[in-house]
Amino acid sequence: MTHVQSMLDAHPKDPGSVDRTKLAECIQACFDCAQTCTACADACLSEDMVAELTQCIRTNLDCVDICAATGKILSRHTGHDAGLTRAVLEMCRIACRACAEECAQHASMHRHCEVCAEACRQCEHACSELLASLG
Amino acid sequence: MTHVQSMLDAHPKDPGSVDRTKLAECIQACFDCAQTCTACADACLSEDMVAELTQCIRTNLDCVDICAATGKILSRHTGHDAGLTRAVLEMCRIACRACAEECAQHASMHRHCEVCAEACRQCEHACSELLASLG
Amino acid sequence: MTHVQSMLDAHPKDPGSVDRTKLAECIQACFDCAQTCTACADACLSEDMVAELTQCIRTNLDCVDICAATGKILSRHTGHDAGLTRAVLEMCRIACRACAEECAQHASMHRHCEVCAEACRQCEHACSELLASLG
Amino acid sequence: MTHVQSMLDAHPKDPGSVDRTKLAECIQACFDCAQTCTACADACLSEDMVAELTQCIRTNLDCVDICAATGKILSRHTGHDAGLTRAVLEMCRIACRACAEECAQHASMHRHCEVCAEACRQCEHACSELLASLG
Repeated sequence: MTHVQSMLDAHPKDPGSVDRTKLAECIQACFDCAQTCTACADACLSEDMVAELTQCIRTNLDCVDICAATGKILSRHTGHDAGLTRAVLEMCRIACRACAEECAQHASMHRHCEVCAEACRQCEHACSELLASLG
Repeated sequence: MTHVQSMLDAHPKDPGSVDRTKLAECIQACFDCAQTCTACADACLSEDMVAELTQCIRTNLDCVDICAATGKILSRHTGHDAGLTRAVLEMCRIACRACAEECAQHASMHRHCEVCAEACRQCEHACSELLASLG
Repeated sequence: MTHVQSMLDAHPKDPGSVDRTKLAECIQACFDCAQTCTACADACLSEDMVAELTQCIRTNLDCVDICAATGKILSRHTGHDAGLTRAVLEMCRIACRACAEECAQHASMHRHCEVCAEACRQCEHACSELLASLG
Repeated sequence: MTHVQSMLDAHPKDPGSVDRTKLAECIQACFDCAQTCTACADACLSEDMVAELTQCIRTNLDCVDICAATGKILSRHTGHDAGLTRAVLEMCRIACRACAEECAQHASMHRHCEVCAEACRQCEHACSELLASLG
């Protein structure tokens, strides 16, 4: 359904010792999380109790920006900078964890927060797995 | 694998007469195309013959920006503006067609351009289908 | 304070018949409007009467995405596509006008909406001027 | 010329102990750096010797994504997360330094790299100053 793995296989540069499966999963999780958090911010905005969800909306919007940047940076292999990759993954992990925790507080009341917490946890996990595989 | 459809179903606002399946497909295609074009621009940059691929890289980068914006705008349903949605979809269709045509010229030589042309065609098609369903 | 004009002057490609001053002003206005709308969405979110500002927040967020994409596309001159440039400017004009009109409704009550309406009007005007100069 | 300071003054939330001047300067520097790096990547792409500038283009593109995300996150004050702000500023500083160093290597040959190195240094400095002021 997505082209992440095909594009990774078609890249002329060998990504080196990185685990290609974990890299593809992390790229995919970042773009998915950016979409999910965009949708959750807007769904919160449409709730009658929006005044109680402003922290959630803000956390969602930050997570969108960080996941989108991370997903794009991980999609590049030309002139790879291991230090920057590591710093970006660490930051994405922090943002996803914060958003997962915030959304989890509203998960029993709002289905969109439940789904969003799941997408954030998946992205946090994918970043951690990729970081660990970098050695 | 992605959460597009679940988030659409969980949104408190009824998206009205829009075809939900086509909307979900279009959102998914936009995010997928943004990722694929990011990867294709970078793959072109790593080719020995990069000097012959500069037009392709530029077209890819524009397509990334437009698809990412379109995917996010389509993910919002609060205070829907039909005119803006239509204008955004028209523009995304133009950008995807331009990128598909450019990448198709290098498809026989570069597998990443072949995959990218396919992702762009899918996104162009998804935008056209959604536009048509809007009546 | 910004480097828009210096970068335009330093580009190896001649941007052709385009009015360089109007181009620089439009790029600058797009980035400024993206920042201002990001800040206005967040300021609305912090208002006690956030429930009455949800339409404004949504319009702001769309305007951010479109202005950011437009500002980046206008910053590129390699392999210029006149048709795409025109379509992007038209769409940016529509998004800025919508956001200016929405913010203007809250301008007397919220200073951030007043400033944001001004930034949107400037960007709408800069897009119109650049479009007109393209002939 | 930009509305960063006015929007900061108009925000209903008190940003707390943060130095407002340094915050405004950092937001401004992030958006300026995102624009400058977008333009530098494209200018490099138009150089005859593009094959020798691929590392510079890649570094520019990463810097665009990180500065744009940082500028937007710093523009939000609702439900402020000090830890995330700090992590984002650290990462932006790393990305700007890497881009400044890369561009500086081509500064004597390409005026756009000279201007871009300057914009990156300014943004790196603004992030450092803001970080230091956070205590």
